[in-house]
Amino acid sequence: MSLKLKNAKRIEGLDKNVWIEFTKLAADPSVVNLGQGLPDISPPNYVKEELSKVAAIDSLNQYTRGFGHPSLVKALSCLYEKFYQNRIDPDKEILVTVGAYGSLFNAIQGLIDEGDEVIVIVPFYDCYEPMVRMAGATPVFIPLRSKPVDGKKWSSSDWTLDPQELASKFNSKTKAIILNTPHNPLGKVFTSSELQVIADLCIKYDALCISDEVYEWLVYTGNKHLKIATFPGMWERTVTIGSAGKTFSVTGWKLGWSIGPKHLIKHLQTVQQNSVYTCATPLQEALAQAFWIDIKRMDDPECYFNSLPKELEVKRDRMVRLLESVGLTPIVPDGGYFIIADVSLLDADLSDMKDSSEPYDYKFVKWMTKNKKLSAIPVSAFCNAETKSQFEKFVRFCFIKKDSTLDAAEAIIKAWKRQAS
Amino acid sequence: MSLKLKNAKRIEGLDKNVWIEFTKLAADPSVVNLGQGLPDISPPNYVKEELSKVAAIDSLNQYTRGFGHPSLVKALSCLYEKFYQNRIDPDKEILVTVGAYGSLFNAIQGLIDEGDEVIVIVPFYDCYEPMVRMAGATPVFIPLRSKPVDGKKWSSSDWTLDPQELASKFNSKTKAIILNTPHNPLGKVFTSSELQVIADLCIKYDALCISDEVYEWLVYTGNKHLKIATFPGMWERTVTIGSAGKTFSVTGWKLGWSIGPKHLIKHLQTVQQNSVYTCATPLQEALAQAFWIDIKRMDDPECYFNSLPKELEVKRDRMVRLLESVGLTPIVPDGGYFIIADVSLLDADLSDMKDSSEPYDYKFVKWMTKNKKLSAIPVSAFCNAETKSQFEKFVRFCFIKKDSTLDAAEAIIKAWKRQAS
Repeated sequence: MSLKLKNAKRIEGLDKNVWIEFTKLAADPSVVNLGQGLPDISPPNYVKEELSKVAAIDSLNQYTRGFGHPSLVKALSCLYEKFYQNRIDPDKEILVTVGAYGSLFNAIQGLIDEGDEVIVIVPFYDCYEPMVRMAGATPVFIPLRSKPVDGKKWSSSDWTLDPQELASKFNSKTKAIILNTPHNPLGKVFTSSELQVIADLCIKYDALCISDEVYEWLVYTGNKHLKIATFPGMWERTVTIGSAGKTFSVTGWKLGWSIGPKHLIKHLQTVQQNSVYTCATPLQEALAQAFWIDIKRMDDPECYFNSLPKELEVKRDRMVRLLESVGLTPIVPDGGYFIIADVSLLDADLSDMKDSSEPYDYKFVKWMTKNKKLSAIPVSAFCNAETKSQFEKFVRFCFIKKDSTLDAAEAIIKAWKRQAS
Repeated sequence: MSLKLKNAKRIEGLDKNVWIEFTKLAADPSVVNLGQGLPDISPPNYVKEELSKVAAIDSLNQYTRGFGHPSLVKALSCLYEKFYQNRIDPDKEILVTVGAYGSLFNAIQGLIDEGDEVIVIVPFYDCYEPMVRMAGATPVFIPLRSKPVDGKKWSSSDWTLDPQELASKFNSKTKAIILNTPHNPLGKVFTSSELQVIADLCIKYDALCISDEVYEWLVYTGNKHLKIATFPGMWERTVTIGSAGKTFSVTGWKLGWSIGPKHLIKHLQTVQQNSVYTCATPLQEALAQAFWIDIKRMDDPECYFNSLPKELEVKRDRMVRLLESVGLTPIVPDGGYFIIADVSLLDADLSDMKDSSEPYDYKFVKWMTKNKKLSAIPVSAFCNAETKSQFEKFVRFCFIKKDSTLDAAEAIIKAWKRQAS
């Protein structure tokens, strides 16, 4: 084939994607899908109703402001001012994007140059690495490491960064660190002292922080979500990313936002105006209306920001009991809607899995999807090549699922265990 | 400010945007807005109704396939097979994107390298230039030139490329040409012989063609839209871009698509999976349903692909008469929903416009918006720095507008002329 029909160099080697591979596998309707982070519970009725109403209004089916629909950026500024404790300019300090994914892309393309280094905490939401590479920068990885837990429950809070090791990753080339709290896939909620270590290093090395906080509302009893942008000296160097999909259980709406100082947000805006220009108007208007409903009742247990984590905590505890009942030791998440467990103790005969070069968890999930009709996501998909072996015994289960889905998963896992014993 | 808070080099100088500037100006509700290409006519009822229905279905509010919702890519392949006369693989030869804008971005980022040259026809839809520059490539411009028309009606078909001049722009560094037919802002519909000249050069120089055909249905009596991808030897080197916003008058849905051979589309898919990952599910499903309605009645005058151009042709003719009645000589468009005219004959006292370095049309439109409460878009916004002076006497009016909006524009223009005479 002619050379001119080839890809541009910036995307060389970036065509692999765990979601495409495993979503295709799980598409079989007989498979119980605890893979992709996708609720099968109903989104709140008022959210769906707002979209139905908006669809009928002619002008809300046309282009809106490129950097965010006016009513949506107003709602977002009103909401987040409560947490940042300062005014947030809806036009200059907020950018509405095509999902949190689009916010990550805009931040990385707008701020990261060829030759820069970007610190990425392992395991990491899988797109961080190719996005950094597409910008021509070098990801510098640091793993979360677990303390020994001897018999106690294993919690996501047992996984921490070593402060010295983290410090060793920073240098004059460090342009940014990507933080993710609550963390996917571990469910770790970074504490104040952990965030302070990161903040101190960002300030010392004059680095940016891209803080992916899409699970910000989904934090369980005894934990509190903290925003690193509110730490002294951090607002000016932090882009904080949120998600409508995670906030209102409508992942298909593909709306997210970046919040930060205008000297950073303006560069994300430049990427947006040269990539997608604007986001869908009807979805933005419906989202704004949904936000107003919940902003007005934030202290009320009915507020979705309060009710969803309560609902999910029950599901989390159920998943913990289920996994423990079959002899596994899940890492109990403090936030988010995933739980990971070492599955090498489950009886899986992977000898006929053809691609033997794949990590254990890839083979395991493919085998489980095919033979047990249960799907999950291999945790090594959230690792760079060098750290895959540290995490390849783990798989991630998503628990933002109807009780009937969790019942079906429970039946599969229990039957499997009975069969093995 | 610290250097690390600066933008990445790839977006240096790409922060200007005509839409942001002029949309803000036209936001005053007392202004009659013939600026941005945004219908104020109602989209078809069934399109809005499909979205209302879809919003109520839980699963259609969650993530779908990243490269295009299955029912939508199926509808698109069924539709376009009628024009390409060959099978189009819905999974490998179609990519659904965040508007046609997203398709342009994916094509350019996926296929164009630093140091490449990309031929751009002037005037051009304004994002082509910054998108090419963001990829580190060099846009090479060639203007459409008008034949003398002495007293006859001036038509968009009087504007042509000089074949020798076009040939002189191609060389071994030429990676692609960006074609736009029907053309925005001129309304030119490229003829078979014109497209053949471009095709021959693409083949001779082994170059790609990125063919922006968002106004494909909007072609007026006596003209026919042709797809360069159907010319011999062109399918394998062409990415053809379409738009839901233009097809169904729902610009706010921000859905578009790229169609082409899988060896090209796969690189656009790689960009998509590392930038936005997927498009909004409810909009994609509603769009698929709308397509099925019209695919089943394509020979029927009620089919929107047939009825919309008929409706717009009446509006076009009205705009021609209006502009002629005040002594202007509009360039009559053969397609699209814009009309451009040399406005320097209108009496506009621009002496107090403060930024005197701006092109004439920028000052004129700002003056007209402020003093006459009528907005339009300056045509020099569709030009590179060197050709702005060739087009700065022209402004672009959008005519996909309700009769009441066109009435209001007519009243303004006629009163203005009376005042001047």
